[in-house]
Amino acid sequence: MMTLHQLAKLVGAELTAPEADQPSAELTRVSHLEAASSDAIVFASDARTLTSALASPAGAILAAAKLFPAAAANDSRLIYVTDARYAFALAASHLQAQPTESEVHPTAVLGKGVTLGKATTIGPHAVLGDGVHIGNHCAIGAHVTLYTGTTLGDHVVVQAGAVLGATGFGYACHADTGEYLLFPQQGTLVIEDHVDIGATTTIDRGALGETRIGRGTKIDNLVHIGHNCTIGRNVVIAAQTGISGSSVVEDGAILGGQVGIGEHATVGRGVILGGGAGVLSGKKMHGPNQVFWGRPARPLKEYLRDLARLRGGRKGSEA
Amino acid sequence: MMTLHQLAKLVGAELTAPEADQPSAELTRVSHLEAASSDAIVFASDARTLTSALASPAGAILAAAKLFPAAAANDSRLIYVTDARYAFALAASHLQAQPTESEVHPTAVLGKGVTLGKATTIGPHAVLGDGVHIGNHCAIGAHVTLYTGTTLGDHVVVQAGAVLGATGFGYACHADTGEYLLFPQQGTLVIEDHVDIGATTTIDRGALGETRIGRGTKIDNLVHIGHNCTIGRNVVIAAQTGISGSSVVEDGAILGGQVGIGEHATVGRGVILGGGAGVLSGKKMHGPNQVFWGRPARPLKEYLRDLARLRGGRKGSEA
Amino acid sequence: MMTLHQLAKLVGAELTAPEADQPSAELTRVSHLEAASSDAIVFASDARTLTSALASPAGAILAAAKLFPAAAANDSRLIYVTDARYAFALAASHLQAQPTESEVHPTAVLGKGVTLGKATTIGPHAVLGDGVHIGNHCAIGAHVTLYTGTTLGDHVVVQAGAVLGATGFGYACHADTGEYLLFPQQGTLVIEDHVDIGATTTIDRGALGETRIGRGTKIDNLVHIGHNCTIGRNVVIAAQTGISGSSVVEDGAILGGQVGIGEHATVGRGVILGGGAGVLSGKKMHGPNQVFWGRPARPLKEYLRDLARLRGGRKGSEA
Repeated sequence: MMTLHQLAKLVGAELTAPEADQPSAELTRVSHLEAASSDAIVFASDARTLTSALASPAGAILAAAKLFPAAAANDSRLIYVTDARYAFALAASHLQAQPTESEVHPTAVLGKGVTLGKATTIGPHAVLGDGVHIGNHCAIGAHVTLYTGTTLGDHVVVQAGAVLGATGFGYACHADTGEYLLFPQQGTLVIEDHVDIGATTTIDRGALGETRIGRGTKIDNLVHIGHNCTIGRNVVIAAQTGISGSSVVEDGAILGGQVGIGEHATVGRGVILGGGAGVLSGKKMHGPNQVFWGRPARPLKEYLRDLARLRGGRKGSEA
Repeated sequence: MMTLHQLAKLVGAELTAPEADQPSAELTRVSHLEAASSDAIVFASDARTLTSALASPAGAILAAAKLFPAAAANDSRLIYVTDARYAFALAASHLQAQPTESEVHPTAVLGKGVTLGKATTIGPHAVLGDGVHIGNHCAIGAHVTLYTGTTLGDHVVVQAGAVLGATGFGYACHADTGEYLLFPQQGTLVIEDHVDIGATTTIDRGALGETRIGRGTKIDNLVHIGHNCTIGRNVVIAAQTGISGSSVVEDGAILGGQVGIGEHATVGRGVILGGGAGVLSGKKMHGPNQVFWGRPARPLKEYLRDLARLRGGRKGSEA
Repeated sequence: MMTLHQLAKLVGAELTAPEADQPSAELTRVSHLEAASSDAIVFASDARTLTSALASPAGAILAAAKLFPAAAANDSRLIYVTDARYAFALAASHLQAQPTESEVHPTAVLGKGVTLGKATTIGPHAVLGDGVHIGNHCAIGAHVTLYTGTTLGDHVVVQAGAVLGATGFGYACHADTGEYLLFPQQGTLVIEDHVDIGATTTIDRGALGETRIGRGTKIDNLVHIGHNCTIGRNVVIAAQTGISGSSVVEDGAILGGQVGIGEHATVGRGVILGGGAGVLSGKKMHGPNQVFWGRPARPLKEYLRDLARLRGGRKGSEA
């Protein structure tokens, strides 16, 4: 729960109305406009939404600074901020109750030598292999499996069914028989602080070395990350993307859904890969904020030129 | 178990032979031809299969009406129907024993306030969050996770390892630090009646609103459906397809395997997307029974023309 | 644990130094160079790595025969073999302790009539349906689900969260209502000896017949294999690949990541499909060691020619 004044302070803004005139309503939740009530915080990034917000019973309105002054600029519920959506998310995170004590669901199975930090929760049926280490303020969902060799930092969230630290997919092939023999997969997996991992996503441990997911990286559902990969900080990886073994994704890169990355490839700092893009094994894609698309992935401009050539000047009818 | 007469009645057909002449054999199962016996129902959609069926010991033969009259048209086991494969599936569904009482496996974990309808079964190790509602005649498989905020109608089947109602993948990025903050994901997920959901498929709950899967829709394994999506009725979604947040798929659409759909896209009523097709964010694909293919998806005719141009008139050697 | 002499014998090589001069150090593990110690086995497939290996404290060095003679060819730790990486994997497999007795984790749920072979382990929360048969020396991971109708041979490894033998995705559509009815999925799934199956991979049982995975085949994470597929021996299937129902993949084929294969298709013996390749329904791809790429998949040479034409002679800037 927070007051309008506390909300303004949280998002680094000032209320225009004098404090005495500010509504004293208690703000208890964030909401979309349709379900707003006097205890709800809403946000508006464009003029039309702001008009609706002002007409709603919402108790607080986080409005994009670019919309100032609104028609009702003196509405005491208004708080102007640079990024209204971010401020809204920030408010939500502060309103959400966080566990203060660690809790392990009685159906969870913890191996020998497992260590858990403070305020960390382990969900129903989760399985933690021998020697797994988990930091503070982590939330491990139902049916999550953490294999031996896995270490999680602080504030890591793992959703249901994810499998971390499983045996990597590396084999040696017998030259005569064509039979495959597992290459040793005895390495480790390190998940740094503030990483989110989606449902039924799989991240394999290193073969001889480690697989590492950098601080602040966010990974969606059904993603696969192979053994010995190094994923940097604040990387975003959308659903069903697959990263083959020994590849590197540098800080701040953004990978759309269903992206495929071959082995020993590098996705440079800040690179953006459009949905379904494919990076060949061993390739290096560089250029902060540069968008690559297609299979094989190429700079967006080239991709669009190729597409136009393919169509012989015909405009895509799907557009 | 059913008699030939009951089978004919079920599929809306009439037996040619007088009732007195009808075999009284009890039909207990459906079968493929190789394993047919006198208690088995088989089906034939083409002439060659029908010939084999007539030579088999099967107790009943559901034959496509277009094959009438067969060489052995007076074989008393023959039942002619418009769609033999459909009639066969219908017979199978009637022969399969259905639970009449609800049963919760003792290893399942049910949160507070969970409600279950009649004749609904909850499999081993399933986890149902607080307040989850499930209707009648549902079958929840092993290791399924239903997060808080999830509601299932009647006759919903969820296979092992599926994760329904998990936290969506939506973040706000801090302009200076590049760090991501979770956008609130406090919405709901509604699964309507007669929906089937495949193994390890993930469907996220809404961010502020709801995600909804319409009545009669069938979803394969390893599918991802993002937060705030609205999937219509009788939609078919094949394996490994991914639908990004806030997209709409209208009634009767058919999505092949590994299709990718961006955010805020619309796939219109009855549209067919070929396997691996990609729909860009914000696009709208319309036209009942119209087939779209490729990445980016375009009408099949255009896609084939583009492919031909790419090849410079060379015929694809894979064909 | 093994001696240098035992290692040489295992990999079919001879030590150059007379036995009396051989180090008696006990070899207890395989290692990468950075973590090598006197009890560790390392390998070197190229000259640079060999130089580093010779400078390391490793107790044994498996070197590619093509590197003979090395600068320090008389180093008694050296063992020359045709395929150093394979020999390394072989050593690792011999050093790894194998269970000698069967063990079923107390949280696992075994249906009626389940049979388990010798030295087979069943992990936490695994669920085995009625009548499932598992051979000797198998390892079933946490949260694995084996549906009724599933049979595993010997030396099968299934990683966490995989779902084997689930209901296939086959429906009959009602001509008037557009509603879908499940086609009977009452068949079986047979996994032959020495198959590895990755985390959260799904393999459906046959509809009326069987799905079969051949001896020695290795399957990565998040792979989908539909009902009635026949996968041959020693096939490699990388992560997130999907194979639709009733398709055949013959012995020794190699499928990259995110490959998509339509229904009733055939991938011939020894064929290699590049990452993301797509095989249309009903197609047959043949030619041992022939590489196919693209969507639709075509011989690599054609694919590259098409790509060059698309670019009008421009060299891909991503290269």
